[in-house]
Amino acid sequence: MLRDNERIDDLVWRGLKIIQNPRWFCFSLDAVLLARFATVKPGDHITDLGTGTGVIPLLLNARMRDINITGLEIHREVVEMARRSVVLNQLSDSIQIIQGDIKEASQILGKGKFDLVSSNPPYTKATAGRISTCPIKSSARTEILCTLEDVIKEGARLLNTGGRLALVHRPQRLVDIFSYMRSYGLEPKRMRLVYPSLDKEPGMVLVEGIKESRADLLVSPPLIIYKEPGVYTDEIKNIFAGEFLSEKW
Amino acid sequence: MLRDNERIDDLVWRGLKIIQNPRWFCFSLDAVLLARFATVKPGDHITDLGTGTGVIPLLLNARMRDINITGLEIHREVVEMARRSVVLNQLSDSIQIIQGDIKEASQILGKGKFDLVSSNPPYTKATAGRISTCPIKSSARTEILCTLEDVIKEGARLLNTGGRLALVHRPQRLVDIFSYMRSYGLEPKRMRLVYPSLDKEPGMVLVEGIKESRADLLVSPPLIIYKEPGVYTDEIKNIFAGEFLSEKW
Repeated sequence: MLRDNERIDDLVWRGLKIIQNPRWFCFSLDAVLLARFATVKPGDHITDLGTGTGVIPLLLNARMRDINITGLEIHREVVEMARRSVVLNQLSDSIQIIQGDIKEASQILGKGKFDLVSSNPPYTKATAGRISTCPIKSSARTEILCTLEDVIKEGARLLNTGGRLALVHRPQRLVDIFSYMRSYGLEPKRMRLVYPSLDKEPGMVLVEGIKESRADLLVSPPLIIYKEPGVYTDEIKNIFAGEFLSEKW
Repeated sequence: MLRDNERIDDLVWRGLKIIQNPRWFCFSLDAVLLARFATVKPGDHITDLGTGTGVIPLLLNARMRDINITGLEIHREVVEMARRSVVLNQLSDSIQIIQGDIKEASQILGKGKFDLVSSNPPYTKATAGRISTCPIKSSARTEILCTLEDVIKEGARLLNTGGRLALVHRPQRLVDIFSYMRSYGLEPKRMRLVYPSLDKEPGMVLVEGIKESRADLLVSPPLIIYKEPGVYTDEIKNIFAGEFLSEKW
């Protein structure tokens, strides 16, 4: 089941497990919060763009079992690892991992076929900062193989009318997120800022846009990670523990 | 000095006073926070669009005396009242109140002549909700005489390159604010959300855009108004008391 450098970690939500290779990347708070934030409805057809380990499909499945999720991932070795996590959790009926390029997502998966598209894309512009020499690591962090605009453009194409694109990104890119969403026919409808602590600037923003919807943004209460140094807030503890899951069933 | 229904209130910051007519409107937290949020630099030429009582020019003057502020207000009776507040505070050398329509602001005041444009515009779309029968009251609350787009369009025309447009508005309109700013050549650079309490949705957003600047939004820590019911947070107490003013001199 495990290859070199791989390990199995607990996802906690409904006892799920995930295979990760720490030399590439491990799932982060960002993915967990996105999986919690996205609107999920019974029967949804979902695709996760740049799925990596498959963490978002697994967590979405933990929220609701009557949904079908396709994870799209460009690196063959990562696709193969994510597929083993799906098998490990006996979820092959609900989750498929497909190899392919986000820039061709709607060609590969079909236009207007999805109710929800999720994505935790690379955050850093290709022009900014140091780039890892490992192509798997670098393309997860930096906009080398796809940009924010590619994700939103292809996301919009994949969605049916009323379908939702849920993203996690850096607040610095909020104007770009809103602007690309509107350019591609998605209206930003929900937003939540994630602040490391009450006195800090937010490090993360969660945004959900709806295809062909009227303008009216709901901004949620602030999501604060630490109530004091090293101590999570109750909300973050509850999210990690999956305590909200019972409300959804 | 006072006409029917008018009263003189303390502005607290540097002992300023303001004449208000409660049948029209009284200044609110929104104006105080905008006056605190906007970036003000020595020597700035500033205009406040839809100045009403003139509260924002007065508060900006309290922050920095070496600036010149023009308040633009459409209602003749309100212009006249705001002018009496300027005289009352002996600030006629630094603050002018001009009668005019926001939609003609750049014709009246000149294009590219200002370093900062501030505005606390009407929040409600003309299509939504009940409209007051008092034209002064209704035009302050509802987009009857000018829209958010008018304010941003004229704001952009008034500013020189590198000049700043500082707005307070409802978070529901954030996508519109960003979108109009970019359409008219302003890049949103700073944003702060104001939450009534830690567990509530924000009721207010402060945004500053810069003319012809590169994309990079700084989102500030959350501004929380009440730490428990009826008890202001220390930050809000300090703003009301003008305690930050000494830092700026």
